[in-house]
Amino acid sequence: MPNDISRPIVFSAAGRRAGPPTIAALMNAALENPSLLSLAAGFTDNGSLPLPAVRQAVEDLAKVGAMEPLQYGTNQGRPGLRRMLAAHLRTWEPDLAEADTERNFFITNGSQQALYLAMQVLCEPGDIVLVDRPTYFVYLEMIKAMGIRAVSLPVNAAGRLDEAGLDELLHKLVGAGEAERIKAVYFVSYFSNPSSRSLDAAEKVMLARVLARRSLILPVIEDAAYRDLYYTMRPEAPSVLSIDAWSDFPKLYLSTLTKPFATGLKVGYGYCTDREWLARMLHTKGHHDFGSPNFNQAVLERVIASGGLTTQLATIRPRYEAKMLALHETLVGEGVEQAGWTWNKAQGGLYLWLKGPDHVDTRLDAEFCRRCIDAGVLYVPGDLCFGDDIAVNYMRLSFGVLAEPELREAGRRLAEVARSF
Amino acid sequence: MPNDISRPIVFSAAGRRAGPPTIAALMNAALENPSLLSLAAGFTDNGSLPLPAVRQAVEDLAKVGAMEPLQYGTNQGRPGLRRMLAAHLRTWEPDLAEADTERNFFITNGSQQALYLAMQVLCEPGDIVLVDRPTYFVYLEMIKAMGIRAVSLPVNAAGRLDEAGLDELLHKLVGAGEAERIKAVYFVSYFSNPSSRSLDAAEKVMLARVLARRSLILPVIEDAAYRDLYYTMRPEAPSVLSIDAWSDFPKLYLSTLTKPFATGLKVGYGYCTDREWLARMLHTKGHHDFGSPNFNQAVLERVIASGGLTTQLATIRPRYEAKMLALHETLVGEGVEQAGWTWNKAQGGLYLWLKGPDHVDTRLDAEFCRRCIDAGVLYVPGDLCFGDDIAVNYMRLSFGVLAEPELREAGRRLAEVARSF
Repeated sequence: MPNDISRPIVFSAAGRRAGPPTIAALMNAALENPSLLSLAAGFTDNGSLPLPAVRQAVEDLAKVGAMEPLQYGTNQGRPGLRRMLAAHLRTWEPDLAEADTERNFFITNGSQQALYLAMQVLCEPGDIVLVDRPTYFVYLEMIKAMGIRAVSLPVNAAGRLDEAGLDELLHKLVGAGEAERIKAVYFVSYFSNPSSRSLDAAEKVMLARVLARRSLILPVIEDAAYRDLYYTMRPEAPSVLSIDAWSDFPKLYLSTLTKPFATGLKVGYGYCTDREWLARMLHTKGHHDFGSPNFNQAVLERVIASGGLTTQLATIRPRYEAKMLALHETLVGEGVEQAGWTWNKAQGGLYLWLKGPDHVDTRLDAEFCRRCIDAGVLYVPGDLCFGDDIAVNYMRLSFGVLAEPELREAGRRLAEVARSF
Repeated sequence: MPNDISRPIVFSAAGRRAGPPTIAALMNAALENPSLLSLAAGFTDNGSLPLPAVRQAVEDLAKVGAMEPLQYGTNQGRPGLRRMLAAHLRTWEPDLAEADTERNFFITNGSQQALYLAMQVLCEPGDIVLVDRPTYFVYLEMIKAMGIRAVSLPVNAAGRLDEAGLDELLHKLVGAGEAERIKAVYFVSYFSNPSSRSLDAAEKVMLARVLARRSLILPVIEDAAYRDLYYTMRPEAPSVLSIDAWSDFPKLYLSTLTKPFATGLKVGYGYCTDREWLARMLHTKGHHDFGSPNFNQAVLERVIASGGLTTQLATIRPRYEAKMLALHETLVGEGVEQAGWTWNKAQGGLYLWLKGPDHVDTRLDAEFCRRCIDAGVLYVPGDLCFGDDIAVNYMRLSFGVLAEPELREAGRRLAEVARSF
């Protein structure tokens, strides 16, 4: 007999901090009105989901009578898959020592779980994490629920990390006695969510040097979720894993097989250079779930072994580029630039990041957002993507899930509102 | 360049509390010596893992071109699967209102994740949870890592909940000013891990009444992971969901499709009667992973819809009974009773719970355990299964994973050590 009449539960501080996602209102609007076109959802392309490859992988497992994938796996993840991910990472970072890689990998329920574990073992409520500006808003909501403060790494007008600003920020934090509270640095380094930009090598080197100058040899979390999703040109900058200036820093490199292959299998992964950090995350993962689904990992082993990941990437890269262009060109054609908005074409990933005129307020409860919902289009308000010093005239548009005709229609609806403001 | 030379990381309290599982030593022993027979691992029967059913489900999805299971799902879990689980729960609890069930269900990465979420939103370090005696040792390790204290519900010599003892315990806790620290009651109610016993209806009613008498209307967590794994007789006792004495208590009923179907798919579920408790767990799950793999849930929908879960249960029930008997009869035949050990035959589930003579110490670092490892057999030391007032002469034997001939051999090895003590 379900009931809601029991005496009020006294929740823990963590329980009390756990609120609904900020974009719950958008999600509800989308549910209530199916004719709304969502440029908000960070979903992937429906038309290219690799059902045949997954079916073949399961068929292959069935043919050889491989029942073990239906048994519990290990907490750290399948060794075979970890070896494959190590080999994959070495295609990006050829200088990584082969012997060290498998041991340092772990499999998670999407890279989101790895982010959570990293924060959980590092931070107390009140601690500080330095984040890129703008940054992944789901990460910001997560750390907010953990009571962690986000402090943005300063950027210049071009959106590049700003050395003088960074130095001043750290000087201020250290001077305010906050040095000990800064527990990590986090950034999305390739085709970022939300900004689609990639950090270049010089920015990464500079960041390490400025931190080291202040003796802030912090754990660094490089979120490389979109690295494989370049359209035509492989991003050039090496990861922090291969940059000398970062060599003394404990490093956690995160990526995923969700965006490059199938979000529905929910297999993410991390590579951690620090044994104790890794061990504590794994012990904590043991308590969370003692291991991600073994079956999904076995399916992905088959997929990778048979070249299915490479094939899928070859399929989706031009699709996402075409989708990006469909949205971009619609916005250009519909005069959104003339209405005072600026953005860069994406070279990879799933997002366009639009800056509006100063007088536009894109927040959820503002007129612009209401008008967009009335016009039948949703976006992610940019204010959610700032750790602090929030700007309110940005929006994130995702072109991942809608088909090209829908993207053009969504662009037209958005443009109409933008022009009228 | 992986390195371990970075400056020491300052971990959070949660990070510092996260240590290796107590049975890591056993797991390592098993890895180092493959000829060891493990009665410790809580794995399921390898020979009956439902590969054909999973293959068919994937084939069915492929045939109708169902690509959506490879897309992100929802944080709460697939509505279709939740409806099926609601229908399944109503086969046990026919009085549950149909309309309330789907809404109150959520899908987790094994029921372990639901346990973690429940504790995370309820408890601060130093808080108390009342637990059955003995109880699920993985749960005990988890709450220990969260800084939560376990206090055992007193039992009599027959292992049944003891009303007078319980009343005295609560009186003592309330008198010590600890009433506010008690945040939940947890028990494994059917074919328990480790003891294989089920709580009967009278015990459940009594527990609610004694708690209510002390105004301790606490959140109750009923772990029903093994309920479907009865051998021949459906367990009679209703869940707390259907017992009037519990009607004012916030209730979380947990179960899983891992043990009854496939652990490798790692789909567990919870049913929560309290909207706010459920909401806070779901918000927290959103931060952990924003949803368990959609694909696995879609596969299980197909499996359940086609009767595959029923078929699998019909297959494994007699298999587990036969395995239980193989181990039980070996122990009897090899004179383990004469050596002073007692246990009950299991009526369901995966475990035998053996009580040894008073002078036997089964702990990991004691002679008995070392002798068993030397003899080539592993068990779970019973001390790990007590929340407090630890007894050291018990062991948990799992007959889930080994085949019958191996179970008999493992039983002989164990008996040899038992007889020599």
